[in-house]
Amino acid sequence: MKLWDKGYTTDNLVDRFTVGNDRILDLKLAKHDIAGNVAHAKMLHKINILTELELKDILSGLAQIQETIDLGTFTIEENFEDVHSKVEFELVKLIGDAGKKIHTARSRNDQVLVDLHLYVKEEIERIISLTSGLFDTLLKLGEKYKNVLIPGYTHMQVAMPSSFGLWFSAYGESLIDDVIMLKAAHKISDQNPLGSAAGYGTSFPIDRSMTTELLGFESMKYNVVAAQLSRGKLEKTTAFAIASLAGTLSKLSADVCLYMSQNFNFLGFPKELTTGSSIMPHKQNPDVFELMRAKCNKLQNMPSEIMMITNNLTSGYHRDFQLLKENLMVGIDTMKDNLEVCNFMLQQVIIKDNILDNDIYDYLYSVEEVNKLVLKGMTFRDAYQKLGREIMKGDFKPDKKVEHTHEGSIGNLCLKEIKAKFNKL
Amino acid sequence: MKLWDKGYTTDNLVDRFTVGNDRILDLKLAKHDIAGNVAHAKMLHKINILTELELKDILSGLAQIQETIDLGTFTIEENFEDVHSKVEFELVKLIGDAGKKIHTARSRNDQVLVDLHLYVKEEIERIISLTSGLFDTLLKLGEKYKNVLIPGYTHMQVAMPSSFGLWFSAYGESLIDDVIMLKAAHKISDQNPLGSAAGYGTSFPIDRSMTTELLGFESMKYNVVAAQLSRGKLEKTTAFAIASLAGTLSKLSADVCLYMSQNFNFLGFPKELTTGSSIMPHKQNPDVFELMRAKCNKLQNMPSEIMMITNNLTSGYHRDFQLLKENLMVGIDTMKDNLEVCNFMLQQVIIKDNILDNDIYDYLYSVEEVNKLVLKGMTFRDAYQKLGREIMKGDFKPDKKVEHTHEGSIGNLCLKEIKAKFNKL
Amino acid sequence: MKLWDKGYTTDNLVDRFTVGNDRILDLKLAKHDIAGNVAHAKMLHKINILTELELKDILSGLAQIQETIDLGTFTIEENFEDVHSKVEFELVKLIGDAGKKIHTARSRNDQVLVDLHLYVKEEIERIISLTSGLFDTLLKLGEKYKNVLIPGYTHMQVAMPSSFGLWFSAYGESLIDDVIMLKAAHKISDQNPLGSAAGYGTSFPIDRSMTTELLGFESMKYNVVAAQLSRGKLEKTTAFAIASLAGTLSKLSADVCLYMSQNFNFLGFPKELTTGSSIMPHKQNPDVFELMRAKCNKLQNMPSEIMMITNNLTSGYHRDFQLLKENLMVGIDTMKDNLEVCNFMLQQVIIKDNILDNDIYDYLYSVEEVNKLVLKGMTFRDAYQKLGREIMKGDFKPDKKVEHTHEGSIGNLCLKEIKAKFNKL
Amino acid sequence: MKLWDKGYTTDNLVDRFTVGNDRILDLKLAKHDIAGNVAHAKMLHKINILTELELKDILSGLAQIQETIDLGTFTIEENFEDVHSKVEFELVKLIGDAGKKIHTARSRNDQVLVDLHLYVKEEIERIISLTSGLFDTLLKLGEKYKNVLIPGYTHMQVAMPSSFGLWFSAYGESLIDDVIMLKAAHKISDQNPLGSAAGYGTSFPIDRSMTTELLGFESMKYNVVAAQLSRGKLEKTTAFAIASLAGTLSKLSADVCLYMSQNFNFLGFPKELTTGSSIMPHKQNPDVFELMRAKCNKLQNMPSEIMMITNNLTSGYHRDFQLLKENLMVGIDTMKDNLEVCNFMLQQVIIKDNILDNDIYDYLYSVEEVNKLVLKGMTFRDAYQKLGREIMKGDFKPDKKVEHTHEGSIGNLCLKEIKAKFNKL
Repeated sequence: MKLWDKGYTTDNLVDRFTVGNDRILDLKLAKHDIAGNVAHAKMLHKINILTELELKDILSGLAQIQETIDLGTFTIEENFEDVHSKVEFELVKLIGDAGKKIHTARSRNDQVLVDLHLYVKEEIERIISLTSGLFDTLLKLGEKYKNVLIPGYTHMQVAMPSSFGLWFSAYGESLIDDVIMLKAAHKISDQNPLGSAAGYGTSFPIDRSMTTELLGFESMKYNVVAAQLSRGKLEKTTAFAIASLAGTLSKLSADVCLYMSQNFNFLGFPKELTTGSSIMPHKQNPDVFELMRAKCNKLQNMPSEIMMITNNLTSGYHRDFQLLKENLMVGIDTMKDNLEVCNFMLQQVIIKDNILDNDIYDYLYSVEEVNKLVLKGMTFRDAYQKLGREIMKGDFKPDKKVEHTHEGSIGNLCLKEIKAKFNKL
Repeated sequence: MKLWDKGYTTDNLVDRFTVGNDRILDLKLAKHDIAGNVAHAKMLHKINILTELELKDILSGLAQIQETIDLGTFTIEENFEDVHSKVEFELVKLIGDAGKKIHTARSRNDQVLVDLHLYVKEEIERIISLTSGLFDTLLKLGEKYKNVLIPGYTHMQVAMPSSFGLWFSAYGESLIDDVIMLKAAHKISDQNPLGSAAGYGTSFPIDRSMTTELLGFESMKYNVVAAQLSRGKLEKTTAFAIASLAGTLSKLSADVCLYMSQNFNFLGFPKELTTGSSIMPHKQNPDVFELMRAKCNKLQNMPSEIMMITNNLTSGYHRDFQLLKENLMVGIDTMKDNLEVCNFMLQQVIIKDNILDNDIYDYLYSVEEVNKLVLKGMTFRDAYQKLGREIMKGDFKPDKKVEHTHEGSIGNLCLKEIKAKFNKL
Repeated sequence: MKLWDKGYTTDNLVDRFTVGNDRILDLKLAKHDIAGNVAHAKMLHKINILTELELKDILSGLAQIQETIDLGTFTIEENFEDVHSKVEFELVKLIGDAGKKIHTARSRNDQVLVDLHLYVKEEIERIISLTSGLFDTLLKLGEKYKNVLIPGYTHMQVAMPSSFGLWFSAYGESLIDDVIMLKAAHKISDQNPLGSAAGYGTSFPIDRSMTTELLGFESMKYNVVAAQLSRGKLEKTTAFAIASLAGTLSKLSADVCLYMSQNFNFLGFPKELTTGSSIMPHKQNPDVFELMRAKCNKLQNMPSEIMMITNNLTSGYHRDFQLLKENLMVGIDTMKDNLEVCNFMLQQVIIKDNILDNDIYDYLYSVEEVNKLVLKGMTFRDAYQKLGREIMKGDFKPDKKVEHTHEGSIGNLCLKEIKAKFNKL
Repeated sequence: MKLWDKGYTTDNLVDRFTVGNDRILDLKLAKHDIAGNVAHAKMLHKINILTELELKDILSGLAQIQETIDLGTFTIEENFEDVHSKVEFELVKLIGDAGKKIHTARSRNDQVLVDLHLYVKEEIERIISLTSGLFDTLLKLGEKYKNVLIPGYTHMQVAMPSSFGLWFSAYGESLIDDVIMLKAAHKISDQNPLGSAAGYGTSFPIDRSMTTELLGFESMKYNVVAAQLSRGKLEKTTAFAIASLAGTLSKLSADVCLYMSQNFNFLGFPKELTTGSSIMPHKQNPDVFELMRAKCNKLQNMPSEIMMITNNLTSGYHRDFQLLKENLMVGIDTMKDNLEVCNFMLQQVIIKDNILDNDIYDYLYSVEEVNKLVLKGMTFRDAYQKLGREIMKGDFKPDKKVEHTHEGSIGNLCLKEIKAKFNKL
């Protein structure tokens, strides 16, 4: 059954080409579609479109459909275009003609908009929660390994002393920026679009404040054309936030892959968590982090993909938007997957000892030596020139003690302050 | 003079290739560099690196340099690599050896990071202010033209009645989402990175809380490695917010270009604001909006460009980051330009009358007719089938009165509520 | 069975995360994997690694596996990592220990590289063939509707007379550029990478010229590191060519969607090939072309996605490359789909008559009038000024006859020459 | 002077916003504009629009303008919109009214299209020539350092022996793929668009075969609408080819930056070609290659930027295309710059000795040992299991002799064959 059925059927090829895998994707929207239907029905009753009895029947029917969703038995068969038509069909089957009245003062654009807003809101909350878990792990690892020194690099050149304490908790603190972006996307999704109908409102005297409250939205997209403009923009905003977070995990993964190289050998993972080679028996490859990097890089491309699809389309609905559903949903699932796997892997990281004993790291201490001369009264520039000459002559012998005490340095990680900043978001 | 001068000079070709047009771009950072120097100097004095007198000299020297910046006479000549070396050079010239001590406990990475954070903060504030101006114009136009009806389209097909009131104020309300993104980017920029030195902190007992307060940052990037991780990420975040805003203006421009076509003829601009053709004497082309669309589309690509440059780089500074300065600065300037020109143009828009008289728009009213049948007691589905049959037979004659009263519809634009939502951000 | 099995098993989560849906995707490579195995086995026999009997057994075993592929019964079960391990497993099952020797002097990197090169070659050939079919349709439509005039637009403004003959065959000729790109990608794929082992060659004295010839490659990627560098680059090159072609179809689709709008009403499709609205009974929406546009726009983003994944990775294999398989394969399938559906749809296009009768198109003829004055001896600039004044005063009355005779114009489409150019590629 | 001047002037703000920096960019087109004018004038004479005398005057005037271009004194002042109006203005100044007739049967779209085609053709030829120079350098370095072994990596893990011979010449051979792409872009640019006028042809009986021949184009874009469709597409195609080449240089740069790290220390450059640190006196940073990587990554983003600007625009000219000029021209110049600097730098590379003596590289030889057991009769799988066990027990002691002899391996670089493949393109 198609909602717009007028008695003829479209060509098969067209049908396959236009519906795509929407039936699978729409399962993720089913519970939100029920929620939207419930709110819409209650509002229709309030404005006297539905009788008390009709509303009772509709709510009971929707509750029964929700049960099948909870049980995992709800499906969208080949003969339905999407979740909206399937739900309406089931409702009519369960309660008869009253079910047909649920579509009054509404359009599919309306339904998919409200479903997507509810879906995005919930998923961003889940992503923030998983990010928070990873944040905790990173700060714990920072605390645990705060005394293990590693070289810090600039230009990939050995530069100054760093530590695993700094490294782990840096990624923790960096996640705060991503959560700021996620919260912004959440706020944008938290505006009720229901009532925009096909994007231009309706002549029915609907009560949009009522559905806003019933659905738990913080605010409303008032202007119905603005509500329609959010299609594509909601997905893009979500993609920006996910891309931001993915960028952080991608960089962390790139570091891990580098640090596992024999040329660094800073860390490793239990052999059960690495993979081998079909030809080189000694290899323990960091495949998980290579794939996490790749998956995160693909996620970083999401905004570009969404913009390429929606760009230069004029206002009003275009079917092009349908294609965004897949990007969005697969993107969200991949992001959650990455967060879980990253958290799982890091909890089992093996940190190597005595990394700085290797004498390629001696120059790490050159700045410390400059600083000592400065503290003895030499100007910075003169001390710098002096050390530079010693190093070029090969006369440089460092004292390997590191004493950094300021906020956010090796000896003073400020984990409590960082945690407080996260919690204040 | 190069900060890292050790007595030999690099090849000319290399110099040109590596410095690029940084000297021009860095002028935008000059005043922020002074601000960073002032805060750093005061802090160095507090921790007894600078004497009272040295501080006084430094502050006086910096004030003199700031004056040249205010006057527009500050320049960065060929023999300087960047704004940081030029400022230090001038300082030493003005006050002698004390000037050399300003670089103590700091690195150029530090300086560029704090300069960029201050610059981005200020520019985002300016962009929000310009957006607010455009928002006001759009809402005013919405109010002014609230009774001028236009067709609303879905799939580019004539769909349902809309209005210029809806159309203008929809873009206004849509800007709220962009401001949410801009505020997120602002919050991310509002964390003091100063004190990270080359990205790994310093053995000097610097007081980062003091510089955070002096520079007016809301918070601090505590972890020094996290501070360094913000390079590239700050630019990317800003680009996300700008891309969001640019997407809104691009779509608005696309609508304008379409609506100015003779096939629509919904609006126009005074002939002074359109351009002509070298071969077709009747043309009045919407070049400003075509170029605004194009410039906004280029801006939407900024995140992709930044990610392509920074992606898969491991932690720690890489010179690659230098290339981001141009993207960021040109992007910010173009965005401000677009906002100003858009606001200027819209204030002179010419709205056409009686647009809906054309009988290609008769079908706009089909849904209204369905709704009337529903209000008389027919189910929605049955009314929909009935009208569909009438239309296919050519029997459809609409009553052209539109009465939409619900929140956010043609007859009830909720401009006050939209303004309140904007002001609450 | 994993090729690199050393007696322990990796964690389940890791397994799911790393294998992904490779088992499904790899089915597309199965026949190419057999071809690679056949060539490699023959070569191993030539260099005396395999005996005559072993080769006979291997070839017979591979032939049996190929049969299951042809029948569609070949599958890759959960306990296999990829097509390569499954084929080797089946071979050993069929012919015993000799099967184990097939992996001599080879690596999985080798196998996937040669499989991908063979796959890409074949698929590009198929895409070129489908493009050729669409080209023929477009030229036929150009011939059929050569006398139906439409307005030509610049800046979306009515500009000069055009025709459906010009419009259809323009897209035909434009496909030639895409085929040039496809041929370049084909040439790049037509270089045998087999023999690069893990990317650094092997100590076995393999004969790569022999496998090049056996596999039908035009040339060889000689340098084994260069062969490995082709991973990611092959996919990117293919994506460039597909993006080029997709760009053409996207623009064609955008035109169709515009031309189906009631504001243009230049063309339509039988109602079986359009879709309806859930709320507006009169709509016949161009969903197929909206989705084709969207799918083609997604395809245009492929290069960006691939570059985001592979960019800044140093030379040598990284597991990140695995993620490209899905992009590539889904991209190729979508492209073929688009070509077939586009060709199918266009063959049923309905062209409207008398389009230029609408008086919004009168100005189309202004340039013709200028030209007439020029032919009577006025300079172009003076004639242009004269007409401009007439139009602004509303005095312009065109003679609607169009007589364009030069090569490639309305009256002289040069379809034969365009076809000849296509055939010469 | 504006070509479309009708007696009023557009607003200043609009002027600045729409013209941008076109006057500077257009200087690159000046000589091509002259060439286009010459061909067009000769053709106009042939079809009797210009008299013998007029043609003579025009050619003489154009020759004089060309001289100013050659001398570098040709400029486009503020009061001209673009190179086309400036050239026409100069021509009229030099020869009077006959100069006005040059614009007959032509449009600015026409002129910019033909200028861009000529410009792109020439620049691609230059890029191919510079690429050829880099190719030669890489092969020479391959030959020179063919006996210097380095580790080969997979997954950033030490994998198998490689060599500088392999590494240098791999990038050489990889450039062949890029040249294939460049040649495709060249072929696409080698089609004369002149005669399309504003994109829909002209009523003048112009002779396009004549101008095709005069301008040295291999072929013609016959269909005038197809000629107009090439706007944006020409730029995109060029960007694809440049992105391909940039990808190769970016990866090479990434390798160089890694190999210069103290953790690898495979190669270096004279200190004049590296840069220092403001705080760490021992640093010799690979800034040139970091910036080359960054610039190449920006270039790889060009196609995305171009597509974001042009995507979803319907057929016919849009002013949006103007913005592509800058992307294209800056992109081409940056690419040439990168090629020159890369070639210059590599000629001075310093290769380190005895790299493989470090015992982190012992496992490089594990596959060799497996192969030896295989050659003694063990199956590959069994030998692989045996070595794997030895390595895990720490019993592995390699024989460090490498003997790879097959085509494209360490001992047999096939430089002659690779050069032959390049020359055959």
